[in-house]
Amino acid sequence: MNNNKLKALQEGEIQRLNQMMTDYLSGMRNDDKLSQAMAYSVNAGGKRIRPLIIFATCAAFGVSLTNSAFIVAGSLEFVHTYSLIHDDLPEMDNDDLRRGQPTNHKVFGQALAVLAGDGLLTAAFEWLASAKLAPDKNLELCRLLAHAAGPSGMVDGQARDIEGTGHQLDLASLQALHAGKTGALIRYAFEAGGILAEASQAQQELLRRFGSDFGLAFQIYDDIMDVTSTVEKMGKAVHKDKGEQKNTYPAILGLEGAKKALQDTLRHAKACLEELAQTGLDVTVYQELLNYFML
Amino acid sequence: MNNNKLKALQEGEIQRLNQMMTDYLSGMRNDDKLSQAMAYSVNAGGKRIRPLIIFATCAAFGVSLTNSAFIVAGSLEFVHTYSLIHDDLPEMDNDDLRRGQPTNHKVFGQALAVLAGDGLLTAAFEWLASAKLAPDKNLELCRLLAHAAGPSGMVDGQARDIEGTGHQLDLASLQALHAGKTGALIRYAFEAGGILAEASQAQQELLRRFGSDFGLAFQIYDDIMDVTSTVEKMGKAVHKDKGEQKNTYPAILGLEGAKKALQDTLRHAKACLEELAQTGLDVTVYQELLNYFML
Repeated sequence: MNNNKLKALQEGEIQRLNQMMTDYLSGMRNDDKLSQAMAYSVNAGGKRIRPLIIFATCAAFGVSLTNSAFIVAGSLEFVHTYSLIHDDLPEMDNDDLRRGQPTNHKVFGQALAVLAGDGLLTAAFEWLASAKLAPDKNLELCRLLAHAAGPSGMVDGQARDIEGTGHQLDLASLQALHAGKTGALIRYAFEAGGILAEASQAQQELLRRFGSDFGLAFQIYDDIMDVTSTVEKMGKAVHKDKGEQKNTYPAILGLEGAKKALQDTLRHAKACLEELAQTGLDVTVYQELLNYFML
Repeated sequence: MNNNKLKALQEGEIQRLNQMMTDYLSGMRNDDKLSQAMAYSVNAGGKRIRPLIIFATCAAFGVSLTNSAFIVAGSLEFVHTYSLIHDDLPEMDNDDLRRGQPTNHKVFGQALAVLAGDGLLTAAFEWLASAKLAPDKNLELCRLLAHAAGPSGMVDGQARDIEGTGHQLDLASLQALHAGKTGALIRYAFEAGGILAEASQAQQELLRRFGSDFGLAFQIYDDIMDVTSTVEKMGKAVHKDKGEQKNTYPAILGLEGAKKALQDTLRHAKACLEELAQTGLDVTVYQELLNYFML
């Protein structure tokens, strides 16, 4: 199976999004260290999975991408980028390398890295609130993004990660950790796409379910890659999790167990896709996105 | 002049707000270290100046306080609290004491302090977006809060502070620093009160002007207190600014010069109040708030 639709999004819409994020940041303030620090991490690349999910969802509904959709995607990527900057801090995961480049605090120092993260998180809400969607929809997106990113979502997952490091969690606790740390923003991406595409209640519920599976698959895949991949391929340190006694799927289930959990999750996700297809969606791009996790 | 109206707000509405903030945080998630870290700093007291400004503004317009007004005030105090937690971090101002108690990272460690700040900032937007005001107003408040707190406002001021420490700024740069670091959120408090009270365009413009003066007075006063006060009175380290070569009004203008700048700013603010009174506002509470700065 080729990934034509996904590739088209990556080569077209994602490039435009990258430009919009750069323009938004540089239009906001004069060039100084803080601006450079924010732009550095936003421009460090990455797979832009969360924006891709939003764009793929609009495509699945046959809805064309408005300027507002790009703002929804860009603000989400800002939130994701802030989380990486703060996660990499010495007091957190203490990472020197991210996406093949020195981490933010390695280049700009710890204080500016904290501020660059704070700045991107806050700018995300300013940008999103100015998206010029219908006010009730726009407000709902602000609320959902904050819910997904905050103490009920991503920040909760990160705190569980920090607190759990060094003693082994059971599988349920690991799932709760990841549901927050990576799952919440990914699920929001599906929800946000559904809101942009005016999905029905039933479709939104399916999107949320699919989003949960997708987020889980994403995390198991990432954990497996940490064990089996190389620094060159990943652009960040590998085999770190074990050294730091991080809780991961391979650590708890073994490598083969983790691979099986990934396959189970993908099977579950595909069943959900069939239901989505029955509501009239063209799920081709979603299938292409799932191919990403083929080991 | 007694401060009857202000005192009534402090003893009534602010107590209710404190309870609402505590309830919101504890309703959001189970009790764990992260929850404790967020609650610790929110409950550490403080003057609640920003909520008081919102309540005072509603009072000046003769508008009664709805539940939504409390949410607008509480979300702003969350943002302020996050900024204190991050400012106190070792890589930032490295403060051990805040409001007479050990700073967040001293109690919960640096990683959780970063996350408690991130959590409060994000929760602020979730709470604000759920305030159930008219969606267009509510969205505008989200946008203005993010603008005031982010890289065009408070985060900008903090970055200027970090970058400027150790070499003397000129007065214009110091003003830009403070306009961001403390001015932006204070001005937002006046704007938000004006939105809640359905102020006219002309009144909003006056509120913004008064807010700028008020924020400036607040900062000059704080700088002077750092020179003249004691740890007991301030609840935080004093005489720190000089030791750290921080840029302050007394450092640039001398103590007498700073006192004169405060008086000038207050005179300016009072002229603005007269204009506000002419539009039909009862500015008594504002006058009481200004008394705070009497040296």
